[in-house]
Amino acid sequence: MPRLAYLGPEGTFTEEALRLLDPTAERLPCANVPAALNAARSGEADGAVVPLENSIEGAITTTLDEFAWGEPLLITAELLLPVEFSLLARPGTEIAHIKRVYTHPAAITQCRAFVSRELPGAVVVAAPSTAAAAQEVSLPGSPYDAAIAARIAGEHYGLVELASRVGDRSDTVTRFVRVSRPCALPEPTGSDRTTLVVFLADDRPGALLAMLTEFSVRGVNLTRIESRPTGDGIGRYFFHFDFEGHVADARVGEAIAGLHRICGEVRFLGSYPRADGVAPVIKRGTADTEFAEAADWLERIRAGRV
Amino acid sequence: MPRLAYLGPEGTFTEEALRLLDPTAERLPCANVPAALNAARSGEADGAVVPLENSIEGAITTTLDEFAWGEPLLITAELLLPVEFSLLARPGTEIAHIKRVYTHPAAITQCRAFVSRELPGAVVVAAPSTAAAAQEVSLPGSPYDAAIAARIAGEHYGLVELASRVGDRSDTVTRFVRVSRPCALPEPTGSDRTTLVVFLADDRPGALLAMLTEFSVRGVNLTRIESRPTGDGIGRYFFHFDFEGHVADARVGEAIAGLHRICGEVRFLGSYPRADGVAPVIKRGTADTEFAEAADWLERIRAGRV
Amino acid sequence: MPRLAYLGPEGTFTEEALRLLDPTAERLPCANVPAALNAARSGEADGAVVPLENSIEGAITTTLDEFAWGEPLLITAELLLPVEFSLLARPGTEIAHIKRVYTHPAAITQCRAFVSRELPGAVVVAAPSTAAAAQEVSLPGSPYDAAIAARIAGEHYGLVELASRVGDRSDTVTRFVRVSRPCALPEPTGSDRTTLVVFLADDRPGALLAMLTEFSVRGVNLTRIESRPTGDGIGRYFFHFDFEGHVADARVGEAIAGLHRICGEVRFLGSYPRADGVAPVIKRGTADTEFAEAADWLERIRAGRV
Amino acid sequence: MPRLAYLGPEGTFTEEALRLLDPTAERLPCANVPAALNAARSGEADGAVVPLENSIEGAITTTLDEFAWGEPLLITAELLLPVEFSLLARPGTEIAHIKRVYTHPAAITQCRAFVSRELPGAVVVAAPSTAAAAQEVSLPGSPYDAAIAARIAGEHYGLVELASRVGDRSDTVTRFVRVSRPCALPEPTGSDRTTLVVFLADDRPGALLAMLTEFSVRGVNLTRIESRPTGDGIGRYFFHFDFEGHVADARVGEAIAGLHRICGEVRFLGSYPRADGVAPVIKRGTADTEFAEAADWLERIRAGRV
Repeated sequence: MPRLAYLGPEGTFTEEALRLLDPTAERLPCANVPAALNAARSGEADGAVVPLENSIEGAITTTLDEFAWGEPLLITAELLLPVEFSLLARPGTEIAHIKRVYTHPAAITQCRAFVSRELPGAVVVAAPSTAAAAQEVSLPGSPYDAAIAARIAGEHYGLVELASRVGDRSDTVTRFVRVSRPCALPEPTGSDRTTLVVFLADDRPGALLAMLTEFSVRGVNLTRIESRPTGDGIGRYFFHFDFEGHVADARVGEAIAGLHRICGEVRFLGSYPRADGVAPVIKRGTADTEFAEAADWLERIRAGRV
Repeated sequence: MPRLAYLGPEGTFTEEALRLLDPTAERLPCANVPAALNAARSGEADGAVVPLENSIEGAITTTLDEFAWGEPLLITAELLLPVEFSLLARPGTEIAHIKRVYTHPAAITQCRAFVSRELPGAVVVAAPSTAAAAQEVSLPGSPYDAAIAARIAGEHYGLVELASRVGDRSDTVTRFVRVSRPCALPEPTGSDRTTLVVFLADDRPGALLAMLTEFSVRGVNLTRIESRPTGDGIGRYFFHFDFEGHVADARVGEAIAGLHRICGEVRFLGSYPRADGVAPVIKRGTADTEFAEAADWLERIRAGRV
Repeated sequence: MPRLAYLGPEGTFTEEALRLLDPTAERLPCANVPAALNAARSGEADGAVVPLENSIEGAITTTLDEFAWGEPLLITAELLLPVEFSLLARPGTEIAHIKRVYTHPAAITQCRAFVSRELPGAVVVAAPSTAAAAQEVSLPGSPYDAAIAARIAGEHYGLVELASRVGDRSDTVTRFVRVSRPCALPEPTGSDRTTLVVFLADDRPGALLAMLTEFSVRGVNLTRIESRPTGDGIGRYFFHFDFEGHVADARVGEAIAGLHRICGEVRFLGSYPRADGVAPVIKRGTADTEFAEAADWLERIRAGRV
Repeated sequence: MPRLAYLGPEGTFTEEALRLLDPTAERLPCANVPAALNAARSGEADGAVVPLENSIEGAITTTLDEFAWGEPLLITAELLLPVEFSLLARPGTEIAHIKRVYTHPAAITQCRAFVSRELPGAVVVAAPSTAAAAQEVSLPGSPYDAAIAARIAGEHYGLVELASRVGDRSDTVTRFVRVSRPCALPEPTGSDRTTLVVFLADDRPGALLAMLTEFSVRGVNLTRIESRPTGDGIGRYFFHFDFEGHVADARVGEAIAGLHRICGEVRFLGSYPRADGVAPVIKRGTADTEFAEAADWLERIRAGRV
C-alpha cells in the first residue's frame, strides 16, 4: 500500500484526485505543493499528487516551478477532476444570514455569479485553500459564516452543504498528476502524454519556433505550452510542454533528442497514460514501423548497399 | 492632471510604478486589478496602472485575463520596477521577537532565505497584497508582528523598516503597464513593443506554429508568450504575445493582419515605447522602406508594367 | 489579326499549339526560341508561342533562360498539347527499308521502344527539331529515310505517315505559352497560374526554404520549381516558380511582394488562365475577402479603435 | 588499373575530367551518357565518368534521369573542370575562310560573342558533342570548316587551334562525377557532399517545403536542387538534391531517414569528397558528438534515469 503525499489539508480537491488515482493509498496531507513534492523526494512518501492546471485558472505555477527547479520527479499518471464547489457552513447556519464567506481566490473568481446573486451583501475573503477555508469555518468562533469548497471538505470538517454546484461554469476541470522519484516509466498504452521542461541556451529570436519545429517535423502534437520566468529578468523564460505520445515512441524520442541538442537543457518529466484516452493521429511517416524501416534503410545505404 | 486607478491600497509597488510613470497624476487606489481596470473603463479614472508580470512569479494572470475578456483597453506605457522588499513593523518591535509575519504569497516565495536565516521560528501568513499586509500590521492589536512589503508601504502606514532588501535575489523586477480606454496610439519611437491576445478558431495541431510563422516570416521577434485557458476545458488555450515593434511598422502590421486572417480572434492591446529602450534588429527585407518599395513594385506588375 | 512568332519551321508541335491558342493568328516561324521571342520583343510580331516544358523531357531551358535574362515579356496564355509522334517518310518508302531515322533528341528518348521493336537495325540521328527532321527527309537525296515528328510536319512537307503514336508513352504532353510585350494582364478567372523568376541576393543557406515559406504562409501552392545556373559558377542558381492564383489575388500579391523584399530580384512573368481549369484550394484565412477584412481591422487598430 | 567508361569520343571534356580524376585508368569511350553508365553497370567497366551539370547550361538531364531511373550506381568522386573552348580546324585553314562551324549546342550558346565578332558570316551547326564535331571536322571532305571544342579534342583529331578561350565567359565550369556499382562509400573527409533523388508519394501541396524542413531542422545545407518530370504529366516532378555532409554524419543520416519516412522513395546516390574542399558550417546542436550525447540522454530517460 503506497503512501502518497498531497496538497492538504484533508478535504481538498487534491485529496479527491488522490482517492480516484489510488483508492487504497495511505494519504499524507501536506501544507503546500512543495511540501508534498518534497515528501516524495525524501522518501517520506512513495509519491505525491498535486494539481498541475485548472481549466479556468490555468497553470498551478508553484507546481510548474517545482518540477523545473527542484530535485527531479517523474509524472506517472494524470487525472482530470471536475471541480464542483459547494457552499458549506456550520450546522444551523441559514443562507440568508451569511455575511462573511471564506474561500480560495480561484473559487472567488469562479463563483462570482452565485455570490452576487444569492449572497448579495456578503464579503468574500481569500483563504490559502478551499479546504483550509472549510477547516477555519468549522471552528467555533470563526469570523466566517461559510466556506466555498469541495463537498468532501464539508464532510471532513462537519459542515452542512447549503448549496451545491455554485461555480459559474459547470464544466470546470482540474488536472492532477501523480509523481514519483525517478523510476521505470509506465508502459506505452497508445494514448499517452509526455511532459518536458526546456531551458533555452540563449534568448535568440526564433528559439521557440525552432523548438516547435522539432516537434512538428516528427508529427508530434503539442497539447500544452507554458512559459515561466527563469528569474533572470523580464523577457527570459523557460517552457513547459505537454505533447502527445510516449518517449518510447520513435517520433517522440527523436523530437526530444532534437530539443536536447539545440536547447540549453531539457528536463524530462514523464510519459504516462492520458486521462482522456485520446489516441494521437499518427502523421504519415512517423509511426514506429516507419522509423524502424528508415533506420534499416539508412544502415544499408551507409554500407553502400543501395 | 490625469486621474489614474491602480492596484492599491496605498503603498503597493503598483503605486510606486504609477508615481514613476506619471508623477503628477491623481491616484485612485483600488482593491484589485479588475477594479482598477474597471475604473479606467467606466471613466471614473482616465487610465490605470497594473502589474503584468514579475521576473520571479511570472504573469499576473488576473491582468492577462482582464485584458483578454473585459472591455477593451489599450496599453500606452510600460515600466520595469525593481522589487525591493523590506521587513516592516510597528515602532518598538524588535526583530528577535517577531513570531508572525504577514505578506503576499509572492513575497513568501521570494524572501524564503531571509526568513529562514533571520526569523527562524516565525510563521509566515499569506496576505492579499504586500501593502495590505503592511496596513494590517499597522493596526493596534494586529495578530501579526511584521510585514514584508515595499518601503513605500511602511512610510504610508507608519511602520519602521527593520531590514531592507530581504528578497533572495537582488534583481527581481516587476513589469507594470499603464492602460487607457481606446485612444490614439503612442507614436512609434524606434524602440516599441506591441501586445496582442489571440484566440484560436479551432484547436488544430500546428496552430501555434502557424502563428509564430506569421511573425517570423516578417522578421518580427516575440518577447513574451503566455498561454491561458479559455475556460472550455483542459487543453484549450488562448495566447498573449508581446513582440518588438509598433503596429504602425509595416512588418508588424502585416504580421498581425496575417494572424487576424488565420485565427479566430485577435485583440490588439497596444503599441508603446519599450521601457528598456532596446531597438529591434530589422531583418533584411522587413524595413518600412522595403515594404513600401515592394508595394510599388506589386502595383506596377499588376498593371502589366514589368 | 495578330501576328505570332513561333518555334519553327512549319510543322512543329509549337505551330500546332499556336493554331490551338489562336486559330486566326498570322504565323511567323522562327529558327529557334530566342528568335521567336525577339520577334515579339522587337514588334516584328505581336507575340510569340514557345514550349516551356515537356512531361518527359522537362524544362525547355532555352525558354527559361530567355525569360530570365532577355528583355521582359509577359505570359498571357498556356496550352497543354499531347505530343504524338509519327514515323514519316517520303512517299514510296517501306518501313522495312528504313535504315537512317532523323529526329530531335527528345523524340529519340521518347520513341526508343518503337524504334528497337519496329526498326531494329536503324540508326537514329539527332536533328535540331522534329520539324526540321521532316523537312530534311522531304528533300530529294536526303541521307535519311524517315523522320519522327508531328503528323502536322508530315502534312507540311509532303511526307507519308508510316506509323502513328510511336512514342513509348501515350500521355506525353508539352506545355506551351503565349507571350507578349508587357501589357495589361489577363483578368483573373478563378483558375489562374502565375510565373516568376527569382534571383537570390546571396547564397545563404536557407534561402530556398525562406522563399517557399513566403508562399506557404499565404496559402499559395507551387506547381513548378526549376533551378537554373546563374552562370557565376557551380552552386549558384536562380529559380523559376509557377504557382496557383493570379497576381491580382491578395494572397499572391502579398507572397510575391514578400519575395521581392527578401530576394535579390524578382521578375514577374505573368498571370494567366490555367490550361487545365483546376481551381485552387483557398486555405482558410487567405481569400481576398479575408485579406480585405484584415486590412480594415488593421486600419482600425492603428487608429486606436479597438 | 581500373577501366572507366566515359562520354566519348576521345577528346571530350569528359575525357579530360577522367584523366584528372584517375590518370592511370584505362579509358573506355562511349557514345553517350547512358552507354557509359551501362558499361559501369554491366561490369564491362569498373566505373564511369559523366558530366552532371555546367555552370552555364545547367543540369545534364540525361545524367540526372539515368541516375534516377536506371540500375543504381554510386557517385564516389566529383571534379570541377573549367571549360575552355578552342576554335579548331584542319591544318592550313585560315580563320577568314571559315564559313561553317560545327559544335555542340551548349558551345553555340557559350561562344556566341566570339562567333559574331570573329566569324561574322559563319553558319554554326549543332553537333552531338564538341568532340564529335572535332572528329567530323578532321575528316577530309567534311562540310564543316572548323569545330569549337576542347583543345584536347584538337590534339586527338589532328586539328590546329586557331583561337583559344573563345567562350563568352572565362569562368565556365562543368561538374563531373565518377560512379561505380554499389560499393563501400568513400570515407568522410570533413568536406563531403551527398546526392539523393526523391520521389514524392503524392503531389500534396507543401511536399517540397516538408522536404526542405527535414534538412534545415538538422542543419543540413542544400547545395543543389533540380526538379525533373516523372513522366506522368505536367506538374509531376521528382527531385535531385545535393547537400553538405556525408551520410555517415549523424545529422545527414537523420535528415535523409526523415525524407525516407515522409516521401515515396528516396534513392541514395552517394557521399563523396567535395571538389572545392569547402567544409560545412556545423550548426549548433548538429555535430556528431551532440547527436551521440542526445542519444545517450534519450536512452537514460527512457530507462527512467532522469
